[in-house]
Amino acid sequence: MLALTVDPALALVERDLPRRGPGEALVRVRLAGICNTDLEIVRGYMGFRGVLGHELLGDVVECDDRAWMGKRVVCEINLACGGCESCRDGLGRHCPTRSVLGILGKDGCFAEYVTAPVRNLLEVPAEVEDERAVLTEPLAAAFEILAQVEVRAGQRVVVLGDGKLGLLAALVLLGTSAEVHLIGRHPGKMAIAEARGARVHRSEEALEGRFDVVVEATGSPDGLARAISLTRPRGTLVLKSTFHGATPVAMAPLVINELTLVGSRCGLFPPALAAHATRRIDVSPLIQARFPLRDGLGAFSEAARPGVLKVLLDMRG
Amino acid sequence: MLALTVDPALALVERDLPRRGPGEALVRVRLAGICNTDLEIVRGYMGFRGVLGHELLGDVVECDDRAWMGKRVVCEINLACGGCESCRDGLGRHCPTRSVLGILGKDGCFAEYVTAPVRNLLEVPAEVEDERAVLTEPLAAAFEILAQVEVRAGQRVVVLGDGKLGLLAALVLLGTSAEVHLIGRHPGKMAIAEARGARVHRSEEALEGRFDVVVEATGSPDGLARAISLTRPRGTLVLKSTFHGATPVAMAPLVINELTLVGSRCGLFPPALAAHATRRIDVSPLIQARFPLRDGLGAFSEAARPGVLKVLLDMRG
Repeated sequence: MLALTVDPALALVERDLPRRGPGEALVRVRLAGICNTDLEIVRGYMGFRGVLGHELLGDVVECDDRAWMGKRVVCEINLACGGCESCRDGLGRHCPTRSVLGILGKDGCFAEYVTAPVRNLLEVPAEVEDERAVLTEPLAAAFEILAQVEVRAGQRVVVLGDGKLGLLAALVLLGTSAEVHLIGRHPGKMAIAEARGARVHRSEEALEGRFDVVVEATGSPDGLARAISLTRPRGTLVLKSTFHGATPVAMAPLVINELTLVGSRCGLFPPALAAHATRRIDVSPLIQARFPLRDGLGAFSEAARPGVLKVLLDMRG
Repeated sequence: MLALTVDPALALVERDLPRRGPGEALVRVRLAGICNTDLEIVRGYMGFRGVLGHELLGDVVECDDRAWMGKRVVCEINLACGGCESCRDGLGRHCPTRSVLGILGKDGCFAEYVTAPVRNLLEVPAEVEDERAVLTEPLAAAFEILAQVEVRAGQRVVVLGDGKLGLLAALVLLGTSAEVHLIGRHPGKMAIAEARGARVHRSEEALEGRFDVVVEATGSPDGLARAISLTRPRGTLVLKSTFHGATPVAMAPLVINELTLVGSRCGLFPPALAAHATRRIDVSPLIQARFPLRDGLGAFSEAARPGVLKVLLDMRG
């Protein structure tokens, strides 16, 4: 089969079909989304080697449990041991011996086929189109904000960054009763959130210290310092960006203003699938381009262009 | 009167008595404590100019409200406007136009006399000795941890740093039902917390990721990275140290492990005064030396020596 691998350079290669481990299904990939984390991995983040890709929509084609056969599925990306303290607490996403699809010790979904534990699969409701379903993982990461931080009616909330995650965060926050702002650089992208009710800004000038909750989704090392300056004293800052290396940050304002900084990563899929199914959130304006897998390198070039939103790899054809 | 000033070098100078503003009392200083923040200010932190000092015990000698005359008092250090949104929310400590005793726009207490708003004064109960009462401000800063973070029975909590604030934090946390650990470098200092039930360690080796709550009180730029490594996934890190300048920190582990980082500064005085009065917490082992004000420069040299605990300036003469 064809696969996009990191070794350490990104390459399109021919590979044997993956073999199922115990409890795993073989999934034929329909669509896969390219995430900023994939771009970071190609730059060395996580030191990953293997098939890249963790935003997956596919069909179960082999499975010991016949009930799963033929089902259209998405896949939670953290592959937990199931037995440790974290797993017993329902936090398999933090299992210390976990592998992570296409990120840590497990081949991902930028390929024609991928294997995954059955317990990580969720069937996609029939009313959710492929193009929405493939964005379940990033939408779940945006919902994770609401799982971690209480956002109350009337609070002022701002998302810093109008990339894919920033826009998804804004769309999720618009489902609360807070006043939602978005600070970005691209009027066309911000318009997606503005159309749903967000107040948009091209710069943070005159907004310093005004927000109860600030979501940092810049993907950039200077994002944390900018987010700190937007947060009111005793306010909450949700840090979403991960990047390779250390960032120099003046931490004194965080202590002096007694901010709460919440690191936020992956979320559970059910709230995201439910938002797709009820059409409360429409992620389709975020999809900017589709490439066949054989043009995977072209897809990555496109995804890496500044300002580009979601690029999909399409294996359906 | 004699006063220790920063202009920008530390100097012992002769000054006029300070004049009371509206709503202020004139306080004759009995004892004042030297804090690490004072040492940082001498190095340039906050750009402060004027009389240094914010840990105060004194007697009211002039006041429009006769009821306060002659009272032995401590003084909350944040001088708030009283009318803004923060002040109305009971968060005068975060009033954007506040001044701060001996730290920001207001002369402090390393002098024979100091003025302070009456609304910032608290009378010290008769049963609390001078040497305990003067440490109300740093003990309140330690109690602030419990005002911000829920510490539950059976949780593993660690304080990183065995300086003054680290020891006070450990003593406060020992009043909860958590399992309290302290990581420091000085066996003599750690013994103060060990005697009250803390488990002490000379290094964090083999303790990585083990703690539900980590209190960073190193006063050192590398403290944050060390504290991050001690915190379990989804755990809470309380950041107490303030220092001048920016610190390079790898923030990815904070996001990946979804830590909550809480900046923590000053606290309210009543819980600290109550702990003094009931003798639940004994701060007296922290006092290492007393100097008369005329030897203030010697007191600062002593306070700046590595490993030295609380140095007091004694104006009781």
